[in-house]
Amino acid sequence: MYQFIENGTVTTVNGFKAAGIFCGIKRKRKDIALIYSETPCTAAGTFTINKVKAAPLLVSRNIINKGGTVKAVLVNSGNANACTGKAGMQDAKETQDYCAKKLGIKTSEVLISSTGVIGKRMPVDTILSGIDQIVPLLSTDGGIDAAEAIMTTDTKIKSFAVKVFLKNQEVTIGAICKGSGMIMPNMATMLAFITTDAVISQTVIKKVLLASVKNTFNKISVDGETSTNDMVTLMANGLSGVVIEENSEEENLFQQALEAVSQEMAKSIVSDGEGATKLVTININNAKSVKDADKVGKSVANSLLVKTAIYGRDANWGRIMSAVGTSGASVNPSKVSISFNDLPVLRAGYSIVLDEDKALEVLSQKEFEININLEAGTKNATWWTCDLTEDYIKINAEYRT
Amino acid sequence: MYQFIENGTVTTVNGFKAAGIFCGIKRKRKDIALIYSETPCTAAGTFTINKVKAAPLLVSRNIINKGGTVKAVLVNSGNANACTGKAGMQDAKETQDYCAKKLGIKTSEVLISSTGVIGKRMPVDTILSGIDQIVPLLSTDGGIDAAEAIMTTDTKIKSFAVKVFLKNQEVTIGAICKGSGMIMPNMATMLAFITTDAVISQTVIKKVLLASVKNTFNKISVDGETSTNDMVTLMANGLSGVVIEENSEEENLFQQALEAVSQEMAKSIVSDGEGATKLVTININNAKSVKDADKVGKSVANSLLVKTAIYGRDANWGRIMSAVGTSGASVNPSKVSISFNDLPVLRAGYSIVLDEDKALEVLSQKEFEININLEAGTKNATWWTCDLTEDYIKINAEYRT
Repeated sequence: MYQFIENGTVTTVNGFKAAGIFCGIKRKRKDIALIYSETPCTAAGTFTINKVKAAPLLVSRNIINKGGTVKAVLVNSGNANACTGKAGMQDAKETQDYCAKKLGIKTSEVLISSTGVIGKRMPVDTILSGIDQIVPLLSTDGGIDAAEAIMTTDTKIKSFAVKVFLKNQEVTIGAICKGSGMIMPNMATMLAFITTDAVISQTVIKKVLLASVKNTFNKISVDGETSTNDMVTLMANGLSGVVIEENSEEENLFQQALEAVSQEMAKSIVSDGEGATKLVTININNAKSVKDADKVGKSVANSLLVKTAIYGRDANWGRIMSAVGTSGASVNPSKVSISFNDLPVLRAGYSIVLDEDKALEVLSQKEFEININLEAGTKNATWWTCDLTEDYIKINAEYRT
Repeated sequence: MYQFIENGTVTTVNGFKAAGIFCGIKRKRKDIALIYSETPCTAAGTFTINKVKAAPLLVSRNIINKGGTVKAVLVNSGNANACTGKAGMQDAKETQDYCAKKLGIKTSEVLISSTGVIGKRMPVDTILSGIDQIVPLLSTDGGIDAAEAIMTTDTKIKSFAVKVFLKNQEVTIGAICKGSGMIMPNMATMLAFITTDAVISQTVIKKVLLASVKNTFNKISVDGETSTNDMVTLMANGLSGVVIEENSEEENLFQQALEAVSQEMAKSIVSDGEGATKLVTININNAKSVKDADKVGKSVANSLLVKTAIYGRDANWGRIMSAVGTSGASVNPSKVSISFNDLPVLRAGYSIVLDEDKALEVLSQKEFEININLEAGTKNATWWTCDLTEDYIKINAEYRT
């Protein structure tokens, strides 16, 4: 069993330090973060499926794929270093190199990550002087500052930690992330950095991270966009001494705890989606296959008409049905039933049982569930979405200018 | 060569009458339309790919698939008769039957179509009394009234006609349509009814309609939604006496004229998309395959971030690149170049040539082109999209209430 830790963050985990400062990439707000482990970490990562991949992402993916140990993650906001070609790759490597030197570690031990505007050269000198400033500030309570420094249009700091008892010993998992726009399954303009003191082999760390991401970060949608910069990394420094053997009970429990913290991050990203005012959980039940359940979840979570109806507190189950019908899943529409929380609105056979007043009560809540029963099989999936509001338009029509 | 006819409509074509009136389905505006041909027509149709299909659509598709001749199309707005189960099917058939009786023709000669709110029973009595009123009003200049009566959140009447000279004789094609929200390739909440006086066999009419729809209605996006009620029909009454033989030069010319009128309709739907202020043509050039060109077109046309950038007159080519990269097409991002009209903004190799002032000039126009050169082959496609504005949100958060 795992347990959430109040005000938990990446530095809640033994042996991890972090810092977050303003160095001048953005106009005012904090824009550079550093997470650092005194001891070498095994690491795993997942990266955007967009064919346009940012330079820092390629650098970090390369390190993760080689399977070496890492000690640090350097992250900047305000500039994505994407679509910047060879020059951008040089910029990325220069900052990585410089950071490694300042930390006194190998270049290959520094993961790097960027988020912000696409297609602009990085202000390298600004970042180098930022590295000069941030390294001496690394501390065991710097996690929240780091979480703040990776924000773009996020309005809330996103930071979590859980502890889990394995073999009667405590293992901690800490995490920070950012999201906001360009949020769609298979990574988004979202970054998440997770730390743990478990002892995890290269094989197992990859396995548990991929399994977690699949059920959490890959099941959310703010706007159906897939960004060029997304990544999630997990670093394990082993300081707890608790070994997570492959296919052991500990792996199972660790996986559950990791998924719990990842789910909190994923939900925090959706509920703080650009302009969002509501967090909606979409449960798709009794699908023919998990793939079908996911198709329906994705279609409903991405539907602008569903998202605007949620915003308007409109019990418009017809739009949900339309999104189900267009999902590509194997569905017999006349078998589908829909409820909002426990309130049925449509029973099978297009039998409408909608009580508008009660529905309005549910839809007025900041968080609620849409339950879709396909009655086509036994597989389920859960997705998360938010509403689409005028503020999303304002933020994105004005961003970059 | 074809030629557009000013104020053209379905009744510009010899032998077609139409009318459009208010009968009480909506609160105030016209809500029922009837198009009628004195002589039997061959007919073709394309229908939504949404698995949730409205009752009237199933009725009409059945008639079209049987290949019989038709004489009338009855259309109502204000109620989609979708997700209404068996009762909805009965309602549809009852109105179709009644309309046929009033016109003194066979039930199987009446196509029916509905658009509006999903999941509400049709007010059948209201519609029957509407049929009583509308039949005597059928006239050879009723096309525009019919076009008005099929509107939902449309702000403009959409009506067109072209004439084309075949074998030195004149053939006319008339059309009305509606669009607005739920607009995505493969049909949308859009209806289009096309008439012609050409003599066209069942085989050829199907062929030319499908070819036209593929390049026009299936290449537009307002909001990425695919509705339950979409259909396009083409009725040919043969009064011109001009025969369109299969694979003839006439077929080719007729096809061009039909595509021209369909393209005008598709563009009118996008530029009058819910909340839209701009019509943007997206040309995808030098793709590896037409499929790839379409994948890129669809991805860019549907991208909320591209659409909000267009609204904000923001020359944010990075969002276009991101949409290209996530399209699933075979693309080497570093080969891609982008221009707005004739103004290059990105050359291959991520060479940015953006002149912000000149770009703002282009993006301030009500209509402009985004040209994307993939440099991956020789195939092209053209798509149309509009911007995404606060008004889209307002319209859809408040619709149905």
